[in-house]
Amino acid sequence: MASRRSLNPLDRMFLAGETRETMMHVGALMTFSPPAEGAADTFRRLMDGLRERWTVQSPWDVKLRHPDLLTSPTQSWVFDDRLDFHYHVRRSALPSPGDERELGILVSRLHSQPIDFHRPPWETHLIEGLSGGRFAIYVKVHHALIDGFTGTRLLTRALTEDPTDRDTPMFFSRPPGEESVAHEHAPALESLLHGLREQAGTSRDVGRALLRLVRARRGHDDDLVMPMQAPLSVLNAKITRSRRFATQQYSIERLKGVARRFGGTLNDVVLGICGSSLRRFLHEQAALPEESLTAMIPVNVRPKDDAGGGNAVGAVLAALGTDLTDPAERMRRIVASTTRAKEQLQGLSKNAMMQYSALLLAPLLLSLVPGAIGRVRPAFNVVVSNVPGPERPLYFRGFRLEAVYPLSIPFNGYALNITVQSYAGTLNFGFIGCRDALPHLQRLAVYAGEALQELEEA
Amino acid sequence: MASRRSLNPLDRMFLAGETRETMMHVGALMTFSPPAEGAADTFRRLMDGLRERWTVQSPWDVKLRHPDLLTSPTQSWVFDDRLDFHYHVRRSALPSPGDERELGILVSRLHSQPIDFHRPPWETHLIEGLSGGRFAIYVKVHHALIDGFTGTRLLTRALTEDPTDRDTPMFFSRPPGEESVAHEHAPALESLLHGLREQAGTSRDVGRALLRLVRARRGHDDDLVMPMQAPLSVLNAKITRSRRFATQQYSIERLKGVARRFGGTLNDVVLGICGSSLRRFLHEQAALPEESLTAMIPVNVRPKDDAGGGNAVGAVLAALGTDLTDPAERMRRIVASTTRAKEQLQGLSKNAMMQYSALLLAPLLLSLVPGAIGRVRPAFNVVVSNVPGPERPLYFRGFRLEAVYPLSIPFNGYALNITVQSYAGTLNFGFIGCRDALPHLQRLAVYAGEALQELEEA
Repeated sequence: MASRRSLNPLDRMFLAGETRETMMHVGALMTFSPPAEGAADTFRRLMDGLRERWTVQSPWDVKLRHPDLLTSPTQSWVFDDRLDFHYHVRRSALPSPGDERELGILVSRLHSQPIDFHRPPWETHLIEGLSGGRFAIYVKVHHALIDGFTGTRLLTRALTEDPTDRDTPMFFSRPPGEESVAHEHAPALESLLHGLREQAGTSRDVGRALLRLVRARRGHDDDLVMPMQAPLSVLNAKITRSRRFATQQYSIERLKGVARRFGGTLNDVVLGICGSSLRRFLHEQAALPEESLTAMIPVNVRPKDDAGGGNAVGAVLAALGTDLTDPAERMRRIVASTTRAKEQLQGLSKNAMMQYSALLLAPLLLSLVPGAIGRVRPAFNVVVSNVPGPERPLYFRGFRLEAVYPLSIPFNGYALNITVQSYAGTLNFGFIGCRDALPHLQRLAVYAGEALQELEEA
Repeated sequence: MASRRSLNPLDRMFLAGETRETMMHVGALMTFSPPAEGAADTFRRLMDGLRERWTVQSPWDVKLRHPDLLTSPTQSWVFDDRLDFHYHVRRSALPSPGDERELGILVSRLHSQPIDFHRPPWETHLIEGLSGGRFAIYVKVHHALIDGFTGTRLLTRALTEDPTDRDTPMFFSRPPGEESVAHEHAPALESLLHGLREQAGTSRDVGRALLRLVRARRGHDDDLVMPMQAPLSVLNAKITRSRRFATQQYSIERLKGVARRFGGTLNDVVLGICGSSLRRFLHEQAALPEESLTAMIPVNVRPKDDAGGGNAVGAVLAALGTDLTDPAERMRRIVASTTRAKEQLQGLSKNAMMQYSALLLAPLLLSLVPGAIGRVRPAFNVVVSNVPGPERPLYFRGFRLEAVYPLSIPFNGYALNITVQSYAGTLNFGFIGCRDALPHLQRLAVYAGEALQELEEA
């Protein structure tokens, strides 16, 4: 039980928030296609080799000192000297026909299972049986061990740009590097939360401040979305312990084409896709609110007082235009909304920006407080988070990484999370939601796929 | 929330005992081989048909009224009018090569996942990818809904003896029948517990009575095994939440041959196999106790005062002869031990037999009391339960049932359970244990397979 590492306050919060329903683990799903030469045998040998000569490096080799009392004041990470490799690294397979739907079902199921805190809080599943000789890797990590953004970087940095390399180690066998550096500029939910740590104190303080803000001001600006302006919707239900996961992949070139036409950013098109598909998805269930849904989005902005021209991560709220029938009008509303929101942020000092963002984020933190859900209107309907990923094609022992899809955390009262990540000219959407609040989540991903063409023709 | 059904005290006990580590669900694994004509397509159509036109009959359509407070005094079963069929009936697949080992790994994993008490407390998994065009069905049911023995009967009664029948419904779609009749004579752990209900009062009373008994008498009879005579062993460890499952199948004819040679019963040979394989398994880990391991076995015996010649279920303790190196000597010790134990029971009235059996069983119930484990020696090392199954070959839409393996409950301090069931000339062993206490459980099943030949040659 040597080699202790303490937990920071945010890590503690993710442990304190863990319940049967709100599980604080994040994940990533990576799919791989085989090299031109036959590869089924290669894959078998890979698996055997992994199991015969395994090593597990930091941070994957530690477990909690007090697994049965997550909030213990003396909680810390301790080295696991009896690590059960086969528990953490598993093989799975898809039932026929091994398509994306079956992959989504399996990953939903795996992501619905809680972490065992008596062991290092991560699992990886090597998934066979994808059509076309492909395979997938699903990784689950508790947020207290590592944040999702860093986790995905650790995964992809363990891959190689060399398609002929046949010795690529698995991520957990790669010696620890400098991955935690340069973390602050990623516009991820995690970066925001990390940034808030010193600024915002406890979640209770942030919640109180948010309520003061909302009471003090009323919005007279159509494009500037205020907290608590979000309509009630099925997206803001209490959640159960089961999840659904669905994915969609886009060519960034096509998304940029739409962005140019509407004078917006790539992220505006992401929001346009979310708005179009959510409108169709909710309309079909007779559950579309009259007012537009709003999204909370972590963004990179340049603060007013930053002489060096550096960026900081802030949070903005944007309208998704789900009250508008015309896709073009919806895109214009989104572009106006995010432009206005970013202006608002840019007018603030870095400290004020952090404080402002803290207020927007507060409801997520509040959702960790038992009994808080349902008493107040949601501050926003859905988190849409867009994080940068590797730019060049990556390989794992000759298998080409096709896509990397993030799985973030649905919170109580925020039953859907959409996190997207770029990779080698593609943008990869991970839709993760509560199984019971969103029984047809798969359709949302299908509609999201069709939404791009709709926007191109709008 | 109409259609309430109350819970009996035993069902309440299984809810009260549910923890993250001791999960009170039981299971069954059935494997099927395809008909002579090609069947892959048949299987696909079966799955599609199931999902398109599903019905769920009693008792599979009820859930707990108070899922978040299992011990609520007003706990009852209520009809689930929003049953999520696709949650309960799932497809899974095995990674290559789709052998019995991969099947064991998958079923271990599925059995390690807790029941979601917000839904009807059962799941069934249709498992593809077994070698030779075979498939498997794994079913998990919480013990509070149905006991394992009745559950397995409900499963197998939903099958047919007609290999040409292509309309066999799944067990959960079969209208409820008279399955609970004739329950009392099955020598299952559950029958014992049911019988104890009226006799023994609460588990605390039984525990106290057991301790009085043990203090009051000392054993002077080598073959009559007393409670608390069991040596400490790795089988009697605290358990974690993960399971390992392994199976073994035998021809009953071969087992009977061994039984005849040693003048014992079929069940004595079951114990002989358990004794031989446990000895080898523990010896290999340098964890073999000097004294013989003992097993608790539910048996059918004829009580002293039963004029009608009927049988009753009692519990006996038997030595497994793990202290003896010679297999023949071990078998003779087992036969002497069970003979002596059954004589002891037969000398009792039916009430006394129930009371005596209650005392032998008490430690399992005690293990549900937090803090009780580790304070006293185990009363026995392992439960070995042998329940009768269907005698004639059964089919499911042309697929022949090859085997049905029971999965019972490891308790805290009783990390291994061996339950065997007969079917169409075979005896099917299900070894279920704690993953961490018994890291090489698969080997135990392999050694059990080799033990029969050893006994035949002894």
